[in-house]
Amino acid sequence: MKRQTPKHGGGPAQLRAIGVIRSSIKQGSQAPKQGSEGAPDAWLEVSPFAVQALEGLVAGDEIIVITWLHQARREVLKVHPRSDPKRPLTGVFATRSPDRPNPLGLHRVTVRSVAKNRLRVGPIEVIDGTPVVDIKPVLPRLQDF
Amino acid sequence: MKRQTPKHGGGPAQLRAIGVIRSSIKQGSQAPKQGSEGAPDAWLEVSPFAVQALEGLVAGDEIIVITWLHQARREVLKVHPRSDPKRPLTGVFATRSPDRPNPLGLHRVTVRSVAKNRLRVGPIEVIDGTPVVDIKPVLPRLQDF
Repeated sequence: MKRQTPKHGGGPAQLRAIGVIRSSIKQGSQAPKQGSEGAPDAWLEVSPFAVQALEGLVAGDEIIVITWLHQARREVLKVHPRSDPKRPLTGVFATRSPDRPNPLGLHRVTVRSVAKNRLRVGPIEVIDGTPVVDIKPVLPRLQDF
Repeated sequence: MKRQTPKHGGGPAQLRAIGVIRSSIKQGSQAPKQGSEGAPDAWLEVSPFAVQALEGLVAGDEIIVITWLHQARREVLKVHPRSDPKRPLTGVFATRSPDRPNPLGLHRVTVRSVAKNRLRVGPIEVIDGTPVVDIKPVLPRLQDF
């Protein structure tokens, strides 16, 4: 693979929002813990600079939306899974807690429709205003993402 | 959910490496495009501050490692899929290209063994020195991540 000199080599860098979720879920207390647990569809509004990176996505596609869970607590390293105090404290890397050093959310969703700069996607459990940092297709031969 | 005032609210923030990949793959030209395409196992060395977040992970677990593909080109919005010039230019959000606005890599791997501050994981196709930004368990009831 030919590569130019990396512009951002050396370590993790600043994320840039490529879009934002517009959802009927307005606060965390309304959000199911996983999309499969009764979450609604939502709009993914793509930032103007990134709209051409959508080309090729169509209704019916299965995609992974990566969000930045902006209300999470980054200093948390252990939690009671699913906020159940009866469960023993567990390292956040062994859980899907939003509270973790880099609060990235992974959401496998279906593209319901594609507008000019928006995707209708779902089901997705994040709150309105959550920044989106990446979109990836589910690999056709690797159904495990 | 009770939440403290978010420390990093408002938008995507600076990522912090929680670890690094130590691999026999030393340059991008040696790396398969997907872990399933002949990639080796590698060590995931966890940063001292984050070691306690591993608690609960054991050999045999299926996890998703999220990396920061530090050699990627962030300005790229369209690519020929799988670097094949015969394929039409496609938006990077419809591909798994490492070149994209936020070059996050998703790698579903098996934990082979757990040492004090290291996980042996694989197969994984990233190059030696790639920063790791998150680790998540594959959800037991949702095999699709």
